[in-house]
Amino acid sequence: MRIAVIGTGVVGRTLAQGLQRAGHDVVVGTRDPGETSAREEWTGLGVPLQPLATVAADAEVVVNATYGLASLSALGEVGSDHLAGKVLLDVANPLDFSQGFPPTLSVKDTDSLAEQVQRAFPDARVVKALNTVTASVMVDPGSVGDGDTTVFAAGDDAEARQVVVGLLRDLGWIDVVELDGLHNARGLEMWLPLWVRLMGALGTSEFNLKLVR
Amino acid sequence: MRIAVIGTGVVGRTLAQGLQRAGHDVVVGTRDPGETSAREEWTGLGVPLQPLATVAADAEVVVNATYGLASLSALGEVGSDHLAGKVLLDVANPLDFSQGFPPTLSVKDTDSLAEQVQRAFPDARVVKALNTVTASVMVDPGSVGDGDTTVFAAGDDAEARQVVVGLLRDLGWIDVVELDGLHNARGLEMWLPLWVRLMGALGTSEFNLKLVR
Repeated sequence: MRIAVIGTGVVGRTLAQGLQRAGHDVVVGTRDPGETSAREEWTGLGVPLQPLATVAADAEVVVNATYGLASLSALGEVGSDHLAGKVLLDVANPLDFSQGFPPTLSVKDTDSLAEQVQRAFPDARVVKALNTVTASVMVDPGSVGDGDTTVFAAGDDAEARQVVVGLLRDLGWIDVVELDGLHNARGLEMWLPLWVRLMGALGTSEFNLKLVR
Repeated sequence: MRIAVIGTGVVGRTLAQGLQRAGHDVVVGTRDPGETSAREEWTGLGVPLQPLATVAADAEVVVNATYGLASLSALGEVGSDHLAGKVLLDVANPLDFSQGFPPTLSVKDTDSLAEQVQRAFPDARVVKALNTVTASVMVDPGSVGDGDTTVFAAGDDAEARQVVVGLLRDLGWIDVVELDGLHNARGLEMWLPLWVRLMGALGTSEFNLKLVR
């Protein structure tokens, strides 16, 4: 599929490479392609960079891999016309580090970042997924335990969820739990306060939960 | 050990029976022992009931198994003198159902019910545990999957955590993750918004997470 990844941090870079490895046609959106391509970690990466304003024009799927507090602004630069009708895979978390570690959530409980994105871009088909694991695990679920841990896909649009589930399978995910309704993103984002503390206690971000039932 | 369980709902009843089965000397605190003992579900249960004001006088461990929104008030009736120096195992969740299902949390992110309890009763040794699973799983972890799912014990007092870890082992828990610091209860309580949604999606409360690392 033609996928535009928004965000040039470790999550955007890792996802772009992972999706490209899985055979997809990936382009990464950034405010300043020249500046980004000059960074050491982007050198020789082989992932094309484009300005935010054009990156999603031909995309079938747009991935929000920006910092949560900057997501609405970055997606605004992508443009609602370029998001309309597209599957918008939201992997971001509304983590607020302004008071230090552990971070708090800038939105929670009665709302979520995913729902804010959906309200800001009502014609996009938002699906929340992958925000519950660290970047390296997103694209390599086999790196944790026996590789059979759980990932979630929450959204209002069943067809969009199916597209995301397909991408998750391409990345190697076996146990995908679909949640009908984007409000479920509240639960997925509120996993983060436990996740960051477990990262501290375990001394690694390379872990995940397996939903046992 | 001598354990006083506060709360006569399904959590209190199930925990009292489970701890008694595990060989502990259990008494349950209730506002009105006569009223509680007359309820069908308490008939022939063989767990002694006592008024809140006296139930914890001789206890080594006090279990807060009340509804989260009523915990501070109920523990107030137990009395700070009877909680002083005691291990206070807090299994309650600050679930607010006033707006329907799914519930929201009455405290979260920058504070937790467990920390509220600790501040209200500074001489108690509060440990948060078991709030992440349904009552039947608390006392029978073997009922989920292969029985090897994860439970957490968070608290400031290492010795109190060890007492709770011992009780968890008595109940059959194998994978116990200790978290140093009661602020970790924020993460454990914020698991609930995902938990209630998974319960809806799975159609059962008999599930749990396994922490895979």
